[in-house]
Amino acid sequence: MNPLHISADDIRNMEHRFRVNFINGLSGYKSANLVGTVDSQGATNLAIVSSVVHLGADPALMGLVTRPRSVARHTIENLAQTGVYTINHVVDAIVPQAHQTSARYPREESEFEHTGLTPAWVVGFAAPKVAESTLSVGLRLREIKHLDINDTDFVIGEVQWVELDGRALGEDGFIDLVTLGTACVSGLDCYHSAPPRVGRFHYAKPASKPTRR
Amino acid sequence: MNPLHISADDIRNMEHRFRVNFINGLSGYKSANLVGTVDSQGATNLAIVSSVVHLGADPALMGLVTRPRSVARHTIENLAQTGVYTINHVVDAIVPQAHQTSARYPREESEFEHTGLTPAWVVGFAAPKVAESTLSVGLRLREIKHLDINDTDFVIGEVQWVELDGRALGEDGFIDLVTLGTACVSGLDCYHSAPPRVGRFHYAKPASKPTRR
Repeated sequence: MNPLHISADDIRNMEHRFRVNFINGLSGYKSANLVGTVDSQGATNLAIVSSVVHLGADPALMGLVTRPRSVARHTIENLAQTGVYTINHVVDAIVPQAHQTSARYPREESEFEHTGLTPAWVVGFAAPKVAESTLSVGLRLREIKHLDINDTDFVIGEVQWVELDGRALGEDGFIDLVTLGTACVSGLDCYHSAPPRVGRFHYAKPASKPTRR
Repeated sequence: MNPLHISADDIRNMEHRFRVNFINGLSGYKSANLVGTVDSQGATNLAIVSSVVHLGADPALMGLVTRPRSVARHTIENLAQTGVYTINHVVDAIVPQAHQTSARYPREESEFEHTGLTPAWVVGFAAPKVAESTLSVGLRLREIKHLDINDTDFVIGEVQWVELDGRALGEDGFIDLVTLGTACVSGLDCYHSAPPRVGRFHYAKPASKPTRR
């Protein structure tokens, strides 16, 4: 341990790129997902997002934070128009292609074509899933909360369907991300593959010690 | 691969606990953090949270989703009163204690005492950090966005200070979570230790292929 104290002044004085790397690391590991949409003409779009969070199980809701409105935001414009989108796990095998979707392609070009990832369709659902992902979720837009504080948006969607490799689904509903090969992210640009399991724990109660299940 | 399609009807018909496990797994890996607060009398509180997300680097903002208002919410009541809180990485060595903070202790009892985790203080800052964590962030509350859709809140805070093991801080600001021993979460109750690095990638550009740095 080499204890380091970094003050608000230190953060303000950081060089731009240094600060971006540093602040992006503070929250710990992040989920790695690809968001699939189409525009009103049906042209596909795919974007990597590391801010997907669980919001609630009943109704089944997921949230994600967009980039600021000042930069290209094809994903949110598409999903606001069509009302639907997919969230697809980045798995180990597609990490380079998933990262490449963050390049600023022109609106009329599809990240599917540029990266070689394969769009696939669930009957009756207007947004494409990623065929290479071992878990995909179809969502219907419920709400976009604009965050004035830094011009980003918090997008809330309700789960419409899930497709996954059934070998990862446990008897109690637990989804084994290691079996799925799901990756995660640290900082801005570092990807990690299946982390070793420490273990699952029983529901915590005041009167008992933490116990593994 | 054993492809499984799960419909909205299937989800509605899931047994309660099964659905909670299942929906909690959809977003992929989640950050594992402990949120430290005090109430207006100075009594400490500590709660594990798996919904901390990066919001922006300038200003340096972090978000987190609370539990519904209908259940005990000492953390958000405390931070709304005092205006400050800490976010502390759950590291491998304290996973059982961190999980145990989710037990429903009475308001007047501190999770620090019950779990054996050690409160530590940054001079002039009213919320306790966790001495066992290798990275702690002090935040000032900026905004609480109530999510009517399921009675939770999205809490936005601005980074006031960071304390970390300096051995994890790279020359470009990258924070090496593997060096920090930071854990992550899958589903409701599964903890994972340092995931193997796939690698870091250069800033993606349309004209170039994804390249490792």
